[in-house]
Formats: sequence, C-alpha cells, structure tokens
Amino acid sequence: MSRRMFPVVAALQPIWLRKNFLAQYTSRAFSSQILKSPSLLSLDRADSWCSASKQSDHLAIQECSNNWTAEIIDGKAIAEGIRSRIASEVRQMKELIGEVPSLAVILVGQRRDSQTYVRNKIIASEEVGIRLKMIGLPENCTESEVCNALCRFNEDPSIHGILVQLPLPQHLDEAKILNAISLEKDVDGFHPLNIGSLAMQGMEPLFIPCTPKGCIELLLQSGIEITGKKAVVIGRSNIVGLPKSLLLQRHHATVTVLHAFTKNPEKIAREADILVTAAGVPNLVRASWLKPGAVIVDVGTNPVEDPRSEYGYHLIGDVCFDEATRIASAITPVPGGVGPMTVAMLLYNTLESARRAFKFTY
Amino acid sequence: MSRRMFPVVAALQPIWLRKNFLAQYTSRAFSSQILKSPSLLSLDRADSWCSASKQSDHLAIQECSNNWTAEIIDGKAIAEGIRSRIASEVRQMKELIGEVPSLAVILVGQRRDSQTYVRNKIIASEEVGIRLKMIGLPENCTESEVCNALCRFNEDPSIHGILVQLPLPQHLDEAKILNAISLEKDVDGFHPLNIGSLAMQGMEPLFIPCTPKGCIELLLQSGIEITGKKAVVIGRSNIVGLPKSLLLQRHHATVTVLHAFTKNPEKIAREADILVTAAGVPNLVRASWLKPGAVIVDVGTNPVEDPRSEYGYHLIGDVCFDEATRIASAITPVPGGVGPMTVAMLLYNTLESARRAFKFTY
Repeated sequence: MSRRMFPVVAALQPIWLRKNFLAQYTSRAFSSQILKSPSLLSLDRADSWCSASKQSDHLAIQECSNNWTAEIIDGKAIAEGIRSRIASEVRQMKELIGEVPSLAVILVGQRRDSQTYVRNKIIASEEVGIRLKMIGLPENCTESEVCNALCRFNEDPSIHGILVQLPLPQHLDEAKILNAISLEKDVDGFHPLNIGSLAMQGMEPLFIPCTPKGCIELLLQSGIEITGKKAVVIGRSNIVGLPKSLLLQRHHATVTVLHAFTKNPEKIAREADILVTAAGVPNLVRASWLKPGAVIVDVGTNPVEDPRSEYGYHLIGDVCFDEATRIASAITPVPGGVGPMTVAMLLYNTLESARRAFKFTY
Repeated sequence: MSRRMFPVVAALQPIWLRKNFLAQYTSRAFSSQILKSPSLLSLDRADSWCSASKQSDHLAIQECSNNWTAEIIDGKAIAEGIRSRIASEVRQMKELIGEVPSLAVILVGQRRDSQTYVRNKIIASEEVGIRLKMIGLPENCTESEVCNALCRFNEDPSIHGILVQLPLPQHLDEAKILNAISLEKDVDGFHPLNIGSLAMQGMEPLFIPCTPKGCIELLLQSGIEITGKKAVVIGRSNIVGLPKSLLLQRHHATVTVLHAFTKNPEKIAREADILVTAAGVPNLVRASWLKPGAVIVDVGTNPVEDPRSEYGYHLIGDVCFDEATRIASAITPVPGGVGPMTVAMLLYNTLESARRAFKFTY
C-alpha cells in the first residue's frame, strides 16, 4: 500500500502500519541465531480436516507410567545460553555500526519485589551489553509524571525498548500508562495490536510477550514437541495466560484455558500433555491434577515470607513441586525455570527492536 | 492522554486511539436496545481461584438423558427481531438528525455464492433503511483497482461501514486489501487491533466480527447460560473460529479450540456443553461427537450441488443434523441458523459505526 494510493489512510496510520512496516520485519528469521522459536508465520498451516474415522486411525494411544522422575528443565542454564548469544550479537552490532540496543525502565515506588526484578534486569542488560536507563519515581507520583517520563523515552531515538515495572501503585491507571508506550518500543508486547497479531494466522506481532515466549523457548530447547499436544493453560491474564494460550495454538497445540469460572479444573488439567500454570496461587496444582508423563511449565512466582532469605521472602510456584516430580515427565522449577527466561526474552526483544531501528542485518 | 502531553505519540496514532476514542465508546451500552449481548467490559470479572477441594464441592454432575429432541434455534426469527429493532433505530436517527447509516460493499468477480450473499445483504440493508453502495469489479481486476475503490470509501464521510465480499480471486492479496479498510469502518471486525481488543480483558473492540457475535446472540436470546460451560470450537479461522473462541472466553466459558492437528477431536467434542462447528466440512460432526444435552451452533455453510434448487446448490452444515437432533438439547439449523444472524450483526455494526460518526445517542 503506497502513501500515494491511500493518503488519508496513511496519515491516520502509525509508522508500523505504513510502508509495509509489518511485512518488512515479519518474514525474516531474526530469531534463527539466538532462539529456537521460529517466526509464527512460518508455523502457519492450512487446516485440512480429514474424516472422523481417518482421524481415529491416526490416534496414538498414550501409554503412561506412574513411575516418572521428572526431568527438571533448567531455565537458568537455557537463559544463560540465550543471553550469551545475545551478548555476541550486541558485540557484532557495536563493531559493525558502533551502536548498541538501549532499554528504558520506569520504576514507581519502593516495592521490594519490584526492586529485585528491576535489579535483575539491570544486571542482565549490563552483562549482554544492552544500555539501560532507569527512572525511579516516588510511590505518590502523579500519572502525568509517569506519562512525561514515558513520553521522553518514546521520543528519544536512542531508546529501543521501554518497560514499566508492574504492578503500579493503585492510584495510577495501569492500562492507560501501558498503552502510552510507543508500539515500536513496547518490548513487553502487551498492546492489543500485538496480541491480535499473535492470535491471527498469517500475522506476526512486533513483539511476543516475554513470559509466554520464554515458556515456548523452554519447551523447544528441551526437545518437547508441541504440535498436536493437548495443552491446558491455567489462568487467562492479559500478560501471561492469554498470550501463552494464543502462542501454543499458533504452534498447533490443542489448547484449553482454565479460569476461576471453570468447573472441575482438576479433571481438565489431568488431560493435559503440556500444563502451563499461571494462576498466581501457591500449590494450586496437586498430584491429582496431573496426567502421568505430562510436561509442566510453572509460571507462578508467589512470594512466601521467609525471614532467613536475604530479601525476606522466597518464591514458590503454582505447582506442588515435590508431588509433581513423581508424576510429570518434565517440569520447570520455581525459581530457576520461567523467570530467567522472561528476562532473557526481554533482552531479546530489545535487541530485535534495535535491529529494526538500525535496519541491522548480517 | 491529552494531545498536549504526548504530541509525538498522538501524531503517530490513528484517531481511534486519540482523545480516548475507545474509552468514549466502550462504556456505553449501545446494544441494550437491539441485542441481548452486553458490552464485553461489563463481563470482566477478577479471576479469584479457590482451592481444589472447594472447587470440587461446587461441581454439578450433569445428568444427561439420551432421549433429547433438540430445540431448533430459529436464527431466522431471532435475526428478524433484531433487524426490526435496527429499522426502528434507523428511523429515529433519520427523524432526529436527518441521517441514515451507510454501508459500502465491494464485490469482485462473478461467484454465484458471493452474488447470493451480497444480494441478501442488499435486501437486508434496504429493509432496515441502511443505505447501501455497491461496487462490482471484474474477476481480472488489479489490486490497485480494488484498493482505489476502497480508498474512496475510506475517505467518504457518508460511508460508515465497508465490506469486501470474500473470497477474493486468488491473484489478489486478501490480507493486504482487508487491512486497507479504515478501522472506524471495518464493520467485519477482522483487523488485528479488533481481535486483540476482543481477546483482552479490560478492552472492548470497535466491532465484534459478525458471525461470532451472531452466535453469542443466538445463545443469549435462547436463554442458554455460557458462564462456566465447557465450550468446544471446531476450527480456528481468523474470521470465525478464533474470534468465536475469544468471545466465548470473555463470556467465561472454558474454551477448547480444535483444529486439523488435534488428536481425537471426537473425544474432546463429546465433552462440550456448547459445541461450535466452523470447520467447513459437511457432516464432519456425527452423533459420536456429541454429549447428550449439548447445545450445537453450526457455523458451517457448505454448498452442495442441487440441480433442483433455484441457484444450483443448497447449503448444509458441519453437523449431521438428523443425528444431532436426537442427542443435543438445542441446535442451529443450516440454513436458517447462524447465516441470518451474520447479516443482522453486519447491519448492527454499521448502525453502531454511524452512531459514532454522528455522535448519536438518545
């Protein structure tokens, strides 16, 4: 679509919809060097249905044993490998064009868990050579103060990714603030346009939300097949459960999403070949929720008070880990599973954004 | 977000993201007069999970008989009621502000089924007082000819909805053409931003795609409860299966989407309280796919050659109707089920768009 042909439309549309901006970036396999995740477009398949009887013939009856000792999926190690490849690409970028990716973080208030998360992101960014700018605002700051900070980052061409650390204090309108982030810098991928593109076959979002992308990468790097598997996602939040279910569906899993209105979630969960928990409820998922041999991705990061810990708490997941290890075939631990992958994906999305901004390819 | 605060952001954003365009239209219950469907925002509920044992206590074991005689959901009659209420609102609009909604249709080529669909839309529009402009282009027209026609409709303030009749001839890029429709006039609701807003809690799309919206309205007008029900959607197309699954989830159903990679779809379908079929395969769903007492919404409209019919074919659904009526508690017929509702929702979306354009409220 040229601007000449559609002067009015072009004027109304932001840059990422103009000049085939999306098409320009969607067909390249940016991820080929760093991640196993393929582009979503490359996954699209025509849904040709065969007759019922034929489908039944194809049925592989899964024989499951009750004597599993689950493989612990080492998210920390996998994330380290990804960060190391990101670091190498950042070095190449610096050598070839004298530029590095740059991430801006806005932290409001003094929440200790938020401070920990931001500190982890700062350390991870520094390690891979991504420049990080942080603005800290007081707990009682106004919405315009946050928005003004955001606006400066939006306008600053040297910034490639912007992250507002959640949760925000209650007096601030979280949705409004998140929607004010420039789409080209929305490395968290929470904008509805990104979510829509994630959902629709034939589309590729500018950014895939970090936690769901990290979960898929964990599965792929652990050699776990997704196509045709029954996946159950517990939780439907905009930032984890929903995008995770959409991403699994793009990978051709048969997906069911459980939420607080689901009747008998335990029974449905027990059908899952791949179970993703993102409910935010400690130990919600007990042994009776699990199919023998299932793969479990535990996204829950629930702080539990712990005076012996350096920060006064430690994290546990949504899954009763000890029970699960005796039933599942593979499981991500908390901490050390999905968490480090989320950070690695944030760095990856920031690098990808910088590549676009600099039109940087090898 | 004021323009003063974010001059750059505002300049990059189209009008529907500026000046709280979305917020302005999402809180009003436009549909209260014509449809039973509530605004999606009004459906949002916090997902508070209770413990496993408590959830099991709530379990209502469904006792199903095998002796159902399914209620036939009369989509034709329900759609007629909606069209009559639309006609009444169009008359009021004309009386009060001297304007009527206006829908533009672009038809490429001579496909007989497309001609039938367009003819039905023309008749339905005329009946309710919506002005319809149609452009017919030859089968071998170029992409720019279609885009030029589209562009004129985009720029024309007297047009409130634009519809490109699908499928387009193979030499035309369907996605590119659909994406060129102005968002404020995309009454089919297929833009990724609409799909993203449909998926995300806390958001309301500008337009909900007509067929999925029509299916939900059929359920609501038939007094069928959706919250907490197990819904299975067969098919994941961008225009029916996907938005339908997202909409059911916003209505708090527990949704599973089946597609051609699903193993043993029959078994999963048999768990459904509400089964929506949009696979486009005649008689895919047999008796063995159905739970006794299930509600079936058959979106399949498969033409079958029929020399005795006026147009040389008749339509059948994805569901083996005779078998299903003996097992389901309610079923939509083909034709006369979802089809007329799709047309009614197109008229509704066009009216809604005109209301926005004229800032028309009572």
